[in-house]
Amino acid sequence: MTDSFSQKPIRKEIPASVPGDEGFDLNPDFIDEILTALDEQQTEHVLEQVIGLHYADAAVLIERLPSEQRNHLLKILQPSFNPEILPELDAAIREEVLELFGYADFAALVAVLDSDDAVYLIDMLDSEERDKVMARLPAEERQVIEQALAFPDYSAGRIMQRELVAVPGYWTVGEAVDYLRTAANMPDDFHALFVVDPRHRPLGTVRLSALLKVRRTVLLRDLMSTEMKVIPTAMDQEDIALLFRQRDLLAAPVVDASGRLVGCITVDDVVDVIDEEAEDDMLRLAGLSETSLYSAAMDTARSRFTWLVVNLGTAVLASLVIGMFEATIEKIVALAVLMPIVASMGGNAGTQTLTVAVRGLAMKDLVPENARRVLWKEVLVGLLNGLAFAVMVGLVAWLWFDDGRLGVVIAAAMVINMVCAGLFGIAIPLVLERFKVDPAVSSTVFLTTVTDVVGFFSFLGLASLFLL
Amino acid sequence: MTDSFSQKPIRKEIPASVPGDEGFDLNPDFIDEILTALDEQQTEHVLEQVIGLHYADAAVLIERLPSEQRNHLLKILQPSFNPEILPELDAAIREEVLELFGYADFAALVAVLDSDDAVYLIDMLDSEERDKVMARLPAEERQVIEQALAFPDYSAGRIMQRELVAVPGYWTVGEAVDYLRTAANMPDDFHALFVVDPRHRPLGTVRLSALLKVRRTVLLRDLMSTEMKVIPTAMDQEDIALLFRQRDLLAAPVVDASGRLVGCITVDDVVDVIDEEAEDDMLRLAGLSETSLYSAAMDTARSRFTWLVVNLGTAVLASLVIGMFEATIEKIVALAVLMPIVASMGGNAGTQTLTVAVRGLAMKDLVPENARRVLWKEVLVGLLNGLAFAVMVGLVAWLWFDDGRLGVVIAAAMVINMVCAGLFGIAIPLVLERFKVDPAVSSTVFLTTVTDVVGFFSFLGLASLFLL
Repeated sequence: MTDSFSQKPIRKEIPASVPGDEGFDLNPDFIDEILTALDEQQTEHVLEQVIGLHYADAAVLIERLPSEQRNHLLKILQPSFNPEILPELDAAIREEVLELFGYADFAALVAVLDSDDAVYLIDMLDSEERDKVMARLPAEERQVIEQALAFPDYSAGRIMQRELVAVPGYWTVGEAVDYLRTAANMPDDFHALFVVDPRHRPLGTVRLSALLKVRRTVLLRDLMSTEMKVIPTAMDQEDIALLFRQRDLLAAPVVDASGRLVGCITVDDVVDVIDEEAEDDMLRLAGLSETSLYSAAMDTARSRFTWLVVNLGTAVLASLVIGMFEATIEKIVALAVLMPIVASMGGNAGTQTLTVAVRGLAMKDLVPENARRVLWKEVLVGLLNGLAFAVMVGLVAWLWFDDGRLGVVIAAAMVINMVCAGLFGIAIPLVLERFKVDPAVSSTVFLTTVTDVVGFFSFLGLASLFLL
Repeated sequence: MTDSFSQKPIRKEIPASVPGDEGFDLNPDFIDEILTALDEQQTEHVLEQVIGLHYADAAVLIERLPSEQRNHLLKILQPSFNPEILPELDAAIREEVLELFGYADFAALVAVLDSDDAVYLIDMLDSEERDKVMARLPAEERQVIEQALAFPDYSAGRIMQRELVAVPGYWTVGEAVDYLRTAANMPDDFHALFVVDPRHRPLGTVRLSALLKVRRTVLLRDLMSTEMKVIPTAMDQEDIALLFRQRDLLAAPVVDASGRLVGCITVDDVVDVIDEEAEDDMLRLAGLSETSLYSAAMDTARSRFTWLVVNLGTAVLASLVIGMFEATIEKIVALAVLMPIVASMGGNAGTQTLTVAVRGLAMKDLVPENARRVLWKEVLVGLLNGLAFAVMVGLVAWLWFDDGRLGVVIAAAMVINMVCAGLFGIAIPLVLERFKVDPAVSSTVFLTTVTDVVGFFSFLGLASLFLL
């Protein structure tokens, strides 16, 4: 019954209606139905409808409701709340759940989750709330969470789960299968068996599909794959994600300093990490700390304020540069009209280079060995496009203000600024990375400072020299 | 031997050296060793070293070498080239492999890959190369690839694999296990069994860990999970990724228009999709079509040219607005000095809002039902920060140019532009999404046009009205 590479011809026609377009999403009619039922106090009906939902769908439903109805729904769900919903919720909404349920009930929900999810939830709380929830956890769970929180942020120790299946290599497939069938405290789900030596150090992994495909007499040590990479507890989650992605892993063993197996990381955690890291890079480039659509306007305004202050600083710096040339502008007001073009083109070309560099660093495609080559290439790209736009902008300026020399000046400034944009677009993230600063966080502001200052200075400076 | 939630206490100390920092990466010394061996023509030694590498590491090695040595290495590897390396390579490097190996050898490599990887490789070729490679594929593989390519880009039909295990629900666990052990054409790896009815429509999935944990007499139909979502062949890969992420799936069944099981999508493909989609959004926001660090400078310059031309258009538009106020600037040159501050702050605040909106749309957090609420919130955020920065910038202008009225004018312009930034930062991507245009591609340019035009117009316009 296996479908091999070409056994079952696929029908070529594509369905006329495309259900996939909203296939996974909650039906808006369903949300309306719940809203009506809530308004009409049909508690039983609501509970019946929502209890049957997958936890991911339940989380979406809770997020989508207006806050009054959300409170109502949460109160109805509280006695039978599925703890798996919690990690899926937006942080601001989870905060509401905590306030509504109280610390004791919240702790009881956290306690039954897998260790990695429990750690994630505790980690997201502010320190006062964290202490209060931790105090209400059973001692065992509290200890595990404290151990995990002792590891650095975003490290393997933080995101690994303790629940795993470790087996000795001298077992046969038959023994392993019998053990899995009869052992009492199996994890709910697992993706591989980890073969360990007597000191609990990992020797290899056995994929479940491999276990199922061979005879019972095969030894695990002959079946296991040994090209697995072990992950030290301190490894950064971004590196872990890259490893999983490159090697198509389902699970990988995490070891402590003495090489003993202490946990495992599974692909579902990595999916979240990849998404988070990509989101982080994107947000940081725009100067954001979070994207929550659900937090209050005042909190959102405050969280964006710092970045805007930094940008105000660079904008004032650019104005100071312009201020140096007040006398020149007073004589040739066309300079004031044209100068934003030079700065803006440099900023855009620089952002292109910067994005390539930030992405390349994150993907480990841009490394010290090829940095010089990439740098020269980007400078060359800046020169090529700089020349092309110099011609265009020079012509525009000439025709607009009927002044050939003005055209030459803006053309020269354009080439200078676009070469600088290429140079600094790659150099700034490289230098920040060297000094262990996340290039996605701070590159943009440095870069626009450079392209603004160089843009205004070269254009207005050349104009002062040659046009007065 | 299972580690339960807290059985094995983790040592608290963190290793002094942090091997994870470069844990997964190729050792630079190893690359140097290969380079030396290539220079010294030690073909045997090179082959020995590289053949043992994981395909992901081999791909990194090939990418990292300078192009002459890369050619040399590829020639050495050609007779025993591991086809799994191909999908891991950067597109520009894969192009080199194709040229070096020729169409026939390349086709032979493609033919042995899983169907999803084969389709991906063929899809990445330009149409002339594609025809030439396809013509050299065995008829069966060619047919499967043609079928897959008939599905829309980025749809489930494109990325699914045909290799899967389908079983009837009336089988027992024992029968299923015996079948897996003895059937001839099993996929190399699989993550779940799909239970189908006699018409080959999926009824449920059985996780392998579930299969391994129960007695042989249990019926598959009693073991299977039925809350699985089936994926129509037309579903977009972005929706599929969200589904996997929300539900922590390892594999999901793909069905045709009549509901029959035609393939499956596995989490390793989804990991790549998530990464790609996040990369795409980030690149598009910066006006890039690709990040290849390996393509030639001329190609890169050309690929970035279009976006810069569009930006030139908007910069000229902003200049036209400034040009309307030439007479005013001539009288008060301080306006030319200060005007970039208003435009730049609006641009930055708008980009923050825009990034939140683009991300929210991609994650389906921003939906028609909450669009109005989010819009008002962003306008309010713009107003709050606009007021804060109006005070700051107003004071700066007043003190700098010793003119209180100038301070009031720039403060008013700042509030106007930052409210517009919030409004358009959310409205532009929403409108583009409504018209089925990818908001990540084109939002930025519309937004900066708005913030530049509004910024310059409100500041210079108010100055003309009140300061002359």
